Parts: sequence; C-alpha cells; structure tokens
Amino acid sequence: MKELNLAIEKLGTPSIKSPLKNTFFEKNGAAIITLKDIEEINKYQKSNKEFPKLEKAGPREKIYFDPAWSNAAILTAGGLCPGLNDVVKGITLTLKKRYNVPIVYGIPYGFRGLIPEYGHQPIILDADTVDDIHEDGGTILGSSRGWQDEKIMVDTLVRRNINMLFCIGGDGTLRCAHDVAKEVKKRGLSIAIIGIPKTIDNDISFIDKTFGFETAVYATNEVITAAHNEAKGALNGVGLVHLMGRDSGFISAYATLANSHVNYCLVPEESFSLKDGLRPLLPMLKSRLENRQHAVIVVAEGAGQDLFKGSEVEKDKSGNVLHQDIGLYLKKKIAEYAKEEDFEINLKYFDPSYSIRSLPSHGTDAVFCLMLAQNAVHAAMAGKTDMVVGHWNDSFTHVPIPAATSQRKKIDVEGPLWRSVSSVTWPGY
Amino acid sequence: MKELNLAIEKLGTPSIKSPLKNTFFEKNGAAIITLKDIEEINKYQKSNKEFPKLEKAGPREKIYFDPAWSNAAILTAGGLCPGLNDVVKGITLTLKKRYNVPIVYGIPYGFRGLIPEYGHQPIILDADTVDDIHEDGGTILGSSRGWQDEKIMVDTLVRRNINMLFCIGGDGTLRCAHDVAKEVKKRGLSIAIIGIPKTIDNDISFIDKTFGFETAVYATNEVITAAHNEAKGALNGVGLVHLMGRDSGFISAYATLANSHVNYCLVPEESFSLKDGLRPLLPMLKSRLENRQHAVIVVAEGAGQDLFKGSEVEKDKSGNVLHQDIGLYLKKKIAEYAKEEDFEINLKYFDPSYSIRSLPSHGTDAVFCLMLAQNAVHAAMAGKTDMVVGHWNDSFTHVPIPAATSQRKKIDVEGPLWRSVSSVTWPGY
Amino acid sequence: MKELNLAIEKLGTPSIKSPLKNTFFEKNGAAIITLKDIEEINKYQKSNKEFPKLEKAGPREKIYFDPAWSNAAILTAGGLCPGLNDVVKGITLTLKKRYNVPIVYGIPYGFRGLIPEYGHQPIILDADTVDDIHEDGGTILGSSRGWQDEKIMVDTLVRRNINMLFCIGGDGTLRCAHDVAKEVKKRGLSIAIIGIPKTIDNDISFIDKTFGFETAVYATNEVITAAHNEAKGALNGVGLVHLMGRDSGFISAYATLANSHVNYCLVPEESFSLKDGLRPLLPMLKSRLENRQHAVIVVAEGAGQDLFKGSEVEKDKSGNVLHQDIGLYLKKKIAEYAKEEDFEINLKYFDPSYSIRSLPSHGTDAVFCLMLAQNAVHAAMAGKTDMVVGHWNDSFTHVPIPAATSQRKKIDVEGPLWRSVSSVTWPGY
Amino acid sequence: MKELNLAIEKLGTPSIKSPLKNTFFEKNGAAIITLKDIEEINKYQKSNKEFPKLEKAGPREKIYFDPAWSNAAILTAGGLCPGLNDVVKGITLTLKKRYNVPIVYGIPYGFRGLIPEYGHQPIILDADTVDDIHEDGGTILGSSRGWQDEKIMVDTLVRRNINMLFCIGGDGTLRCAHDVAKEVKKRGLSIAIIGIPKTIDNDISFIDKTFGFETAVYATNEVITAAHNEAKGALNGVGLVHLMGRDSGFISAYATLANSHVNYCLVPEESFSLKDGLRPLLPMLKSRLENRQHAVIVVAEGAGQDLFKGSEVEKDKSGNVLHQDIGLYLKKKIAEYAKEEDFEINLKYFDPSYSIRSLPSHGTDAVFCLMLAQNAVHAAMAGKTDMVVGHWNDSFTHVPIPAATSQRKKIDVEGPLWRSVSSVTWPGY
Repeated sequence: MKELNLAIEKLGTPSIKSPLKNTFFEKNGAAIITLKDIEEINKYQKSNKEFPKLEKAGPREKIYFDPAWSNAAILTAGGLCPGLNDVVKGITLTLKKRYNVPIVYGIPYGFRGLIPEYGHQPIILDADTVDDIHEDGGTILGSSRGWQDEKIMVDTLVRRNINMLFCIGGDGTLRCAHDVAKEVKKRGLSIAIIGIPKTIDNDISFIDKTFGFETAVYATNEVITAAHNEAKGALNGVGLVHLMGRDSGFISAYATLANSHVNYCLVPEESFSLKDGLRPLLPMLKSRLENRQHAVIVVAEGAGQDLFKGSEVEKDKSGNVLHQDIGLYLKKKIAEYAKEEDFEINLKYFDPSYSIRSLPSHGTDAVFCLMLAQNAVHAAMAGKTDMVVGHWNDSFTHVPIPAATSQRKKIDVEGPLWRSVSSVTWPGY
Repeated sequence: MKELNLAIEKLGTPSIKSPLKNTFFEKNGAAIITLKDIEEINKYQKSNKEFPKLEKAGPREKIYFDPAWSNAAILTAGGLCPGLNDVVKGITLTLKKRYNVPIVYGIPYGFRGLIPEYGHQPIILDADTVDDIHEDGGTILGSSRGWQDEKIMVDTLVRRNINMLFCIGGDGTLRCAHDVAKEVKKRGLSIAIIGIPKTIDNDISFIDKTFGFETAVYATNEVITAAHNEAKGALNGVGLVHLMGRDSGFISAYATLANSHVNYCLVPEESFSLKDGLRPLLPMLKSRLENRQHAVIVVAEGAGQDLFKGSEVEKDKSGNVLHQDIGLYLKKKIAEYAKEEDFEINLKYFDPSYSIRSLPSHGTDAVFCLMLAQNAVHAAMAGKTDMVVGHWNDSFTHVPIPAATSQRKKIDVEGPLWRSVSSVTWPGY
Repeated sequence: MKELNLAIEKLGTPSIKSPLKNTFFEKNGAAIITLKDIEEINKYQKSNKEFPKLEKAGPREKIYFDPAWSNAAILTAGGLCPGLNDVVKGITLTLKKRYNVPIVYGIPYGFRGLIPEYGHQPIILDADTVDDIHEDGGTILGSSRGWQDEKIMVDTLVRRNINMLFCIGGDGTLRCAHDVAKEVKKRGLSIAIIGIPKTIDNDISFIDKTFGFETAVYATNEVITAAHNEAKGALNGVGLVHLMGRDSGFISAYATLANSHVNYCLVPEESFSLKDGLRPLLPMLKSRLENRQHAVIVVAEGAGQDLFKGSEVEKDKSGNVLHQDIGLYLKKKIAEYAKEEDFEINLKYFDPSYSIRSLPSHGTDAVFCLMLAQNAVHAAMAGKTDMVVGHWNDSFTHVPIPAATSQRKKIDVEGPLWRSVSSVTWPGY
Repeated sequence: MKELNLAIEKLGTPSIKSPLKNTFFEKNGAAIITLKDIEEINKYQKSNKEFPKLEKAGPREKIYFDPAWSNAAILTAGGLCPGLNDVVKGITLTLKKRYNVPIVYGIPYGFRGLIPEYGHQPIILDADTVDDIHEDGGTILGSSRGWQDEKIMVDTLVRRNINMLFCIGGDGTLRCAHDVAKEVKKRGLSIAIIGIPKTIDNDISFIDKTFGFETAVYATNEVITAAHNEAKGALNGVGLVHLMGRDSGFISAYATLANSHVNYCLVPEESFSLKDGLRPLLPMLKSRLENRQHAVIVVAEGAGQDLFKGSEVEKDKSGNVLHQDIGLYLKKKIAEYAKEEDFEINLKYFDPSYSIRSLPSHGTDAVFCLMLAQNAVHAAMAGKTDMVVGHWNDSFTHVPIPAATSQRKKIDVEGPLWRSVSSVTWPGY
C-alpha cells in the first residue's frame, strides 16, 4: 500500500471563482487517512513515513472551467446497476442548476456513442429530461460493453467541444476512461475525465461502498424467502440461489446476514469441495436435510471456480473473465449425489440476476448516488481528471483511476464480516 | 353444458343444529344461475329446459356432523401457489373457533402423508400453530405431487377417525380426491371430501376466479418492468419473460394489460409462427426493434407447443403434460434469427416462476382465500362431499369435482379479455 | 328495482363503419341480467315482468362519431383515487391509437377547467404525454371539488368543438356530468358525456366493483400491521385505524378480512354504542385487553355518526356530508374510559387516508382501469351519452347516470360479506 | 473531546477460554481512532497528546463469564424502532448457539419488567421463540417508557441470578442502564450491563449509524411520494410531511436527498421564520406555488421550536422534552397566510411516525442489527460493562454509556450533508 500513488491528476490551476452560493468549500489540500487502527497508525509514525491519504471530495472555491463555456457529457457502460439514473440525474442537475453549465449531453450506449461510425446521436439532458428518471431502473442513456479506440473518442470529444466527460461504469469502463485521459494528456487538451465506479459487487479498492450494492442486498431478501418457501414446501427441499459476485462475495455475504433462512454461503474467497476435501458441501447438505428437511444455499457466481480446473477461460467484451456457471453445476451435482445416495432431494433453482440489477435505487442508496454525482461535478469543475469519486470513512474522496482499478476488493475471510457469516450458517444454524 | 350434472353429493341428511351464532344461514336449495346474457336466458326459457345452476355456498342451519365428535384433516398437494397458508389457516380457525371441532390435523406432504409406509406424522393445527402462517408464502404442511392409492388412504382416514378431509390442490389433486370420495362412498363411510381448487393459472371450469391468481398478476409487474429496463438499457434490447400458464394464458394476458411495457403476449390459446405462417413473431420483432429499439415479450409456458410437433410427450407425477420449454426455445431462435439477419439483438431472459408461486397473498386475494376456507368448512359440516368450493357471479358456490375437472377454462380469443390484449400490443403499441 | 330505467341515452343512430380491425364487436342489444339467484329469476318469470338488464359495453360495428372530425376531452374531479392516471392513459391511447381521433384534451382541475374565467388552459394528451403516467398516483390533470355552471361548460365545449367529454369522478361529479348531458340534450347538440365512476369506497349502485378499491384494500395491510405492532409493543396497546368509507364500510370490511390482526370493524352499516346499549365497544375492548393485552380497531369514517346526534350537518363543495371525525372521537373516548376505569391503555392512532388514495394502481386493479377506459371510448364513439361504464357479473356494462347515482351501495349486514367479517372479529378472535 | 473518557469498564480479568470455534479473536487492546482528517491527526501529533480512540468490538479469546453458569436477560425500552426484534433474535442466538448459555430471559415491557410489583413474568427466549420474529416490526418483548428504581432492579437481577443484562433503548434507557451499572458496581456484583443504542433519529455521539435509521429513510419515500401526488392533484397543492427528529434532522435531511420531490427541509439545526426574519417560509412557499403550482415540505418534529417561545416545556416519562407540534402549527399558519393573501392553497398533512417506527428492518439494516447483537454478546461475555456497542469508521466499537449519552449528535449545517440538502431544495429546485 505504501508505494501506491493516491495523488490526483489536475488539468491546471483553478482560477475562476465558483458560482456556488450559500455553501462552504472544501480546501483542496483536505485529506482523510486510509488507516483505521491505532496500531497501523503507530507503525507509520514509527517509520516516519507519511500516512496514505485520500483527497477529500467537495466544491472548491476556485474552479478550473468557466461554466458558461463548458459542455459536459455523461455515459453509462457495462451491465445495469441500481442507481444509474440517479447518478445521471444528479450530475445533470448539479451541472445545470448549480454551475449553470449550458449544455449536458447524454452519450448513448456507453463508449460506442463516442464512435461516429455507429451513428448514435447524443441526447440533450436537462431538468425536464431527467425529471422522473430516478424512479426507473436501468439507464436512460443505454449501455454497452467493450473497449473502443480512445483516439477516435478523443477526436469526438474535441469535435463536439466537450470539456468534461463523466463515465459511469465498472473496471473495464474505468480502464477505458483512463486510456481516454492519457490520450487527452498526450495531446495537451483540457478535458476532465471523471469516473463514477459502478459495481454492484462492491469490490473496488479504496472505496468502502459503491452505489447499487445496498439495493441489491435488499432485493436478495425476496428471492431468498422464495427459495426458503419452496424448500419448506417439499420433502428435503433445497432452494439454491445464484447471486452476483464475480470476484468478491460481498452480496452473498450480506444477503446471508440479512436473511436468516440461508444455511450455506459460497463465495469466491473461500474454497469448498463437493464430497472429499475441505468443507465438503454435499455430505453437509445431506446431514442438514436429515436433521431439518430443508435448506437454502446461496452461491456467488465466482464461487467454486477451482472445481472447473482444466476448462478454458473465456472473457466478455469488457475483459471480465466469463465464469463457468457454478449455480447450474451445483444443481446438477446435487441431483447426481441424491441419486447416488438414494436420498430424495427436491431442488429449486433461482437466478435473479437481471431482476436485481435493473431495479431503481431508493432511500440511503439513492442519497449515496446523489452525493456521488454532486461530488463528481465538483471534481470536474475544479479541473481534476483521471479519477473516480469514492467513499472512505464516511467521507467522499477522490481516487486515481489506476489506484481504484489496481485490484479487486475482496472479503477478508479472517475479518469481522466473514466471522459474522460463519457464525450464522451451518453447522449450527 | 346442458347435460352437465351440477348436483352436489351428500353424505346424508343434516339433522344437527349448527352451533354458529349471530349469523344468517343459506338455504340448502339456494342457487345461482351460470348464465349471464339475456339471450342465453331466453334460449333456455324457450326450450323449457332448466337453467344450469350452482348451489350456493354458506353455513346451513342444520349440519350433518356433530362437531364435538369430528376430526378434520387438511392437506396441500401439487406446486406452490400464493394463499395456501391463508386457506389452511382459514379452515383451521373456522373449524376450531366457529364449530368447536376438537382436532384438526395437518397432513404432511399432500396425499403422501396418508400413506403409512412413508412414515410422515400429522401435525396438530390450532390457533397458535396457524397464527402467523398467512404472512409466509409456501405451505406449512409441505406438498408433493402424484397419485396415491385411495384404498390405503381411506384406510388411514378410518384408522385416524377422520370424518372431513380438505384437499387443497389442482386438477390432479382434485381427481385423486374424487377417487377417495368414490372409495368412501363404496364403503358406505361418512367422510366428507372437500376440495379447494388451487391453480395459479385460473383455469378451472365453472369457477371465475381461483386464489393466488391475483397475487401472481401483481407479481408479474416487477419482472416485466425489469425486462423493460434491461431492454431499454441495451441496443435492440429484448426482454423475454416466461410466465406460468400450462394450458391457459390468463396470467400472461392479465400481466400484459397490467403493465403497458409488454409488446407481445404469446399464449396457448392463439398459435403463432416463427417466420413463415400466421402471426410471424421474428419479423415483427425485428420491425419493432427497427422502429423503437427495444421490446418486451411475454410468453406463457404452454404457448407455441405446436412448434415442437413430433417430439415425445412427457408427463409429471401429477399427470400434467410436461411442456417443451418455449421460453428457452424462443431465446435460441431469436439469437439464430439475429445472426441470420445480421441484426444485433441483446436478449435478456426472465423466468420468475418459483419466485411468484411462493409469495404470500395479501389484500383482496387474501380475503378470497379466507372466504373459500370458511365456505369449505360450512360445506363439510353440512355433509356435502366430492365437491369443490367455487366462485361465480360474485357468489361462492359448490361445484362437483367431476364438473370442475371436466375441462380447462381457456381464454376465449373472440372474447373481451383477448380483445383488450390485442388492442394494446404490437403492432400499434 | 322494477321501475328503474336502465336504458341508455343515445345521441343518434350510429352509421359510420368502425375503424377497429381484427376485433369482434358487441351487438348493441346485448345485455346481461342484474339478478343472480334462481329464485329471483323465477319470481320475474312468474310475474311475466322482464328481468332488469344492463347493456353490455364494448366496441360497436357502426359508430356515431366520425373519428377524423372528433375532439375528445377528459377531466378528473373530486378526491384522489388509485388508478386515475391509468384511466386517463387508457382513454387517450384508445382514442388516438385505435380510433385515430386527432385531438384529445386534458381539462385541468376538473369542471373548473371548463369555466373560462379561471383561465386554465387544456393540455394536449398523446402517446408521449401519457407514456409513464400510470406509474404515478394522483392525476396528471389535477382535480377540484364542486359544481360548476353547466351552461357555461357547454358553451366551452361548443367553442372548443369537443364532441366527447369523459368525466372521471364520484357521485358529485357524475351528477354534474348529468346536468351537462341534460343541457347538451336541451340544445340539441351532439356531445357524448361519459362517466367513469370513481369511488375508492366501492359504493355505486349497479356496479359490483370500482377502480382503486382493490389497491386501497391492499394498502390497508401495511397500516394495520403497523397498528398491530404498536399495540403489541406496549402494555394494553390499542391500534386505532381510521379508514375511508363515508357511507359504506367496504374498505374496512375487506381490510379486516385481509389482515387477521383486526379485532373490531366499525362501519356505517352497523351501529354500536360506547358503553350502554347495543354492541358496547368500550367494555368489550377492556375485556379483550384483559384477555390478550392488545387490540386493533378499524373504523370507517362514516361509522358511529349517530353518536354525534344533535350536531350540525356540514357538507363539502361536492355536496358530500362532512362527517364528525369518529376516529379522533373514539381516541378521546377510549382515553376517558381508561381513566374512569383506572385501567392503563396505550393507544396509537393511524389515519392513512391520503397515503392510500394517492397510490398508483397495479396488477388486476390496473387491468380493470384499462378495460373501463377502453369501454368508455367505445361507448362514446357509438354515440351513447349520460351514462357511466360499469361492471356486473364479470362483464362491463353501460349504466345511466341517474341509476348509478340513485343510491349508495352498502354492505348488507345480513349478507355473506358481513357474515365473514363477524366471524373473524371479537369475541372469539 | 480531548478530556472525554473512552475507556471501557470491566467486571474483572477474563480468564476462561472462549468456546467459539473456527473464528479469529479481536485483541483486547485493539482500537480505532475517532479522527478522520489528516489535519486533525497532525494537530494531535504536534501536541504530543494521544489520539482519542475507541475500543474495537468482537469476540475475545479469554472470556470473563463461564457460559455454562450464565443467565442472560434482554429488554427493550422506549418507542418502537425498526430492527428491535432483529437485535433480540441476534443476541439470543449468539448466546445460545455460539456460547451455549443455557438460559436467556426476555424481560417484558422494559425496565418495568424488573420491578416485581408490576407482576410481569419473563419469557424464555430460545431458537424456536425467536425463529420468525425478525420478520415483524415492533418488539416481542413489549416496551415501556420511564425510569425505574435501580436498587429494586438490581435486587431482581440478583434474585434471578442474571449476570448479563442487555438493554436496547434510547438516551433515557441508557442513562437508566448506567444507574443500574453503578448500583451493580457499588455492591461489588458481577453483572454486565450492555446497551444497544436505539434511536431512529441517528443522533448518538461517537456512533456514526444506529439501527433502524436506514429503514426509516427508505420508508419516508412512500409518504413523500404520496404528498407530492396530492400536491400535484390540486391547484396550489402543498404536501406537508411531519417526520421524526426531536433534536436532530437526520431523517428529514436523508429523506430530502432520497426523494427529489421535497422542496423545503426544516430541521432543528437550522432556524427559520414564518414571514419576517431569516429564511421566511411562507413568502417563499407562495413564490414557489406561483411558479410551479405545487410544493412538498418536510418538517422534523424538533424544527422551529423557537417559534413557540414562551410556552411551557413538557417532558415525557423518559425525560424527553415534549415538543410543540410544529407540523400542525405550520398547517394552521399556512392556512391563515393563504387567507390573508387571498391566495388559494390546498394543503394535505401527513404524519407517518408510527407507521415508520413499527416496520421490520431488512437488507443492510438487518445486517447491521445482527452485527450489533453479536458484538453485544461478545462484550458481555468478556466482562465489559456500562457500555454500548457502537459503530465508527466501518468498525464496531465499545463506547462507555456516559460518552454515548453526553450529547446529541446533530447535523453540521456547515458540513457536507447539509450542503447537499441545501443544493437540492428551493430556491432552484
């Protein structure tokens, strides 16, 4: 962690007075430390090294861009996630109502919309266009996967005279945004590239919480209850629920803690075996059914990938590894095992993925989306670039894209979250 | 319809004064006619034939069974359906609190629970056991599919001294209940067999509404909205939603009317073709995507079965024809068509079946469950047997099991329901 | 009932071929009878009188108005009700997409919008304007209470060349619409006046179900559960829930059946006393608290009005009697009684009225709204007037406004609905 | 802050090996610092003072109580709050399933239940008793307000041989728990007193989040949308929503950010005037109505109390100041103003308080409840006392009761939360 660069790229020195009124401004040097424990702090103090620190988000008294001459653009890329429209709405209204930026473009279908040959026309975003969009899931801009040529995209930005580009998307999107930022820098242009990290899996480094995650956790409740009802409704009923979580099992872990009907929680961070080996799922399942006649299993999509050893690795357009489907695999293996053991099992399979990621966000999750959006605009206006808006220790922060995408955040199986999960799952519960 | 026997079987003459207080009693001869139109009525009048009429449900002043000496039993069979626990609770409380029947057994796992060799023990149902069960989906009794030997089952009923058996289940369950009733009659026993028809598909003859259907229609809203959000979130996005409806498309038709995002509604009652022939789905889909860039298709599980001509017909344990999966078939065919036509289509597939049928019921659907339950008890106490409790023209009725299971109710594609559906789907909408 | 005129007013003979395609048409003479029981039928047959019958709703092969020359207008009046926007949307789209009527006006703020001196401008309704409105409660047109001068309103209709006016509203609204229809007739004009009855209380004669009622019943579940939780959370806790129902207790009765936590259901149709007299509430409440320590009371706003004898009767702008607030009155009386008896009672009061009536409708309730709207348009196009679209015995019907407003439908306390309610409330439950 | 004592009271030295398996233990000295900014850190470093630090929660390797000889008790006091039953369930199961504590008592009706003269009998809590309670709002234990004599309560604890008392409640409850802890200490007894802070208002010092708050914020969405629908449905409609928040406006602030229909957010932390003076509400409301014809106002119960100057101050049994009802006051003042100005305003009033606080918790809020409960048990087993379980910088902590109750946490009107609120309310939005 020590060598990690947490300094934010800037387009230049802000020199224009902010038009914001009746507000207080964050100082540019303001920073929060990334460490929590007194022990970690003490180590740094002894070593005379500086604490790693994250720049605070918020409006600055002096801004870099003159709002009256600014054209902003927003795009959404990758899979759906609750809150996308909230973020689009928040950015649009903050730009238009607080900074009086005259034009905000919505770029259709992600980075595709910046490639002229596809022929997509930007839409004009204003108070009317975005008025009710937060009530709907999905994204009014449309989305797409995959990398596009940053040179052509920068050409488009220049041609359209866009000086702020807000990219809402996951790892792949942010890396592509970083390429755009590098190209902008290479050409010496003044275009701020601001990312808003979208990962329903909550797995971004230096960011303790991502938008949509909370909504996803709430939404798992219904499907897990359905799985439990089906499990109880049949002899030796098993409800098998396949949840999102390619590399990190946060959704599955939280879903397990939020709904006490879950008996097994399988995540990428903790391996398990089917019959022989560490944590053998099938015999434990049988023992629970013999004791309680029903069970619910939650499995994250990235769990148990080592069971497929030897298979080819495939990737999607965004470069994400395409996993073997552990849900359907377990379904098959449980059926085979039941046959082998001559033990009746009635399994029902649930895969709610699209139904969850296409929900709108509400409540504290919607508040979070709005604040991310407001801070993204403040960052862009201040001339920050090649960064994402993050959240750490109850504060909004700026994180360089390379730091945010350096590695996936994962559940610490020796930490308090997994300790809680372990203590409420089988055996015992 | 004319020859159909709508008279209800009786175990004997009711001669015991009902213990119900402060209530009014339905006369036994009370009946409602099954015809609605003045023209139909006129035809019957001219022909001097009697109108077909259904016996009214409700408490009778004289009852057949002495409550103090009665033992009732309840079972649930077949797939889950919203409201099962409401009906179980309603029967239990009406028996115990209104008629003071001392013992109500819950038979586990459907008819299986009446076969001693499986070793399932009945549970005792009382005010405490059923207190909160209506808040949960599924069935606290557990369920199972398939026919069991009626001789063994009647032996069990006799051995346990049960004189009222309430069977909550679908077609297969009701036919099996009818076999039990015949066996009871053959032996000259006094055991009332009362069915409460369970079909989330709302497809029972002489019954205008079945419990759980309303909840199912409400629940489709969320998944169709999700499909719409996914469809709009991608270029040429298609949300394909597979809904319940083995022989009748009522859920799909109502879901379509309830959520204006649906553009195509495919049901068993109206055939369609893929490319060539009547109502060609794929070219119409392409034309809509070219015009509007997104589409939602709802397909009932029994739709388009003629597309599988030549395949073997399989049946499940309850004797229901196992359909080829039209949802996955269309998913494949749409992908193939997109390739053939070199036309990008982003399809997302939704199959919410288990998540819908395992919901609890609420509101007017819960009211309906309660009233069915109350009337089922009134019928049993009055010594009626081999019948189901139905609903017709805003009144609860008695329907002989053979009449109820004589044929599946289907959408009249020349009737007002389908007229409404046609007028809000593509082309045009 | 015998003398009641159920014949529908017509503007003239329909002679234009309907533009509807691929549909089937209802014959104009088609009718359904209003009687259900075979006994009632027999009585009529013996007396040689004709059955009272209602005209069937639906599209006619010949229509009266030439769509290409038609201008329609829609207004909403009175209090909010779930489904208002669904009806507005359904009328608009059926007019524009099915009949190709060129212009549909939305009249703002009810009948006020037809009085020039208020200066409200109509809005143009089309597919875009109404696209998402069904997702929101309330009415996009705005509403107001109170009668306006029918002469001035007809002047406005003539000046704006409107030949179809759809009035969505309650008793007061429909009576005012009737005055407009009479004025139109007096002047010999060709303007169809079609009502869509709006009453969340479900209390209109000859109509077995009104839109929004189902949603209202579903919505009571949450507040009654809250009342129950508060009641259980305190010693001798009482949850007192005040529900809609000025003259009829349908919502309260259904709410009681839908949520088994209700112990007392007080409606206008059955009087009760506080301490002395028939059905004394307070001593019964005390006895329940002594037995069970908590209780939930549901009271319809029109219940117990005889307790206020001697007070002045006030009316609102629409002519509805303004009731004394029975909810707050009971709250006060229970507190006084607790003091008198030196018996601790912890009462929590709930009045969810506005939160319920402003909800959007979903599921089968939304289906009902859509079908009402479609049939309202069919009726107007066929030149029917001075009528409302109703529902009877599972069919949509036409009902003359004077018949629909002749008297309020009430719970029959000797009928099956109230029998069910009585059997699940205290004493006993 | 510097002089504040954050050290936790201990009953003695833990010397028994914890029975927990397959888990990792927190070291007793582990601590997190309470500061976030690098500037604050720097100040402390320069001053050579120690950082204020909070002890980390979590299981300890050595525990103080022998589980086999332990009797635990749980009580809930004060008003309802979402998640109470989750906490009760979590404590019960952690005690019984993880530590094998033989007996867990539920004390009825708060501290009252520890006073013999009231005659309340404790209930036995086990896996069956608590199985489904998390699905219900309220508290299965019942609650009450008010202080009870700590001497009598300690006598009861001793007589019943209880060595761990978990008190779930707000300020008043925690102060009373502190009195019990002092009495225990005075007598030299070994009884751990652990608080779990309950405040739907999220206003406890040194604790960044309290359970139930998140659910409350989600629940405001529905009522604010209803208020907006009513406001839009009438000419110059105003929806006035009264929310919880006696001393702090967190719920109102979050509700405003979560639902963009809110135009005014009135909280205790920022004063306003009616007509003359700073932030004059009424003229601003009129100007918005003239511009937009509808408005939504959210007002926290503790807002605008200075408008009542001169009135007597009343307190409830728990010692909380009973506020003048600002909601009803504003309703009256707006009506008066409308009359004065001869300007029609249609105001609808909403007060959802009991409907919100009696909800169950779900999702991430339920996860939070469970973790609080687990950590409360770990603390008690380790012999900690006179403390509450808190949360800070993403970690669970121990906070001495006196520190937690030292002052109410309030919105910093110069901080980022209020900045966000100000930037999305009128004028401008």
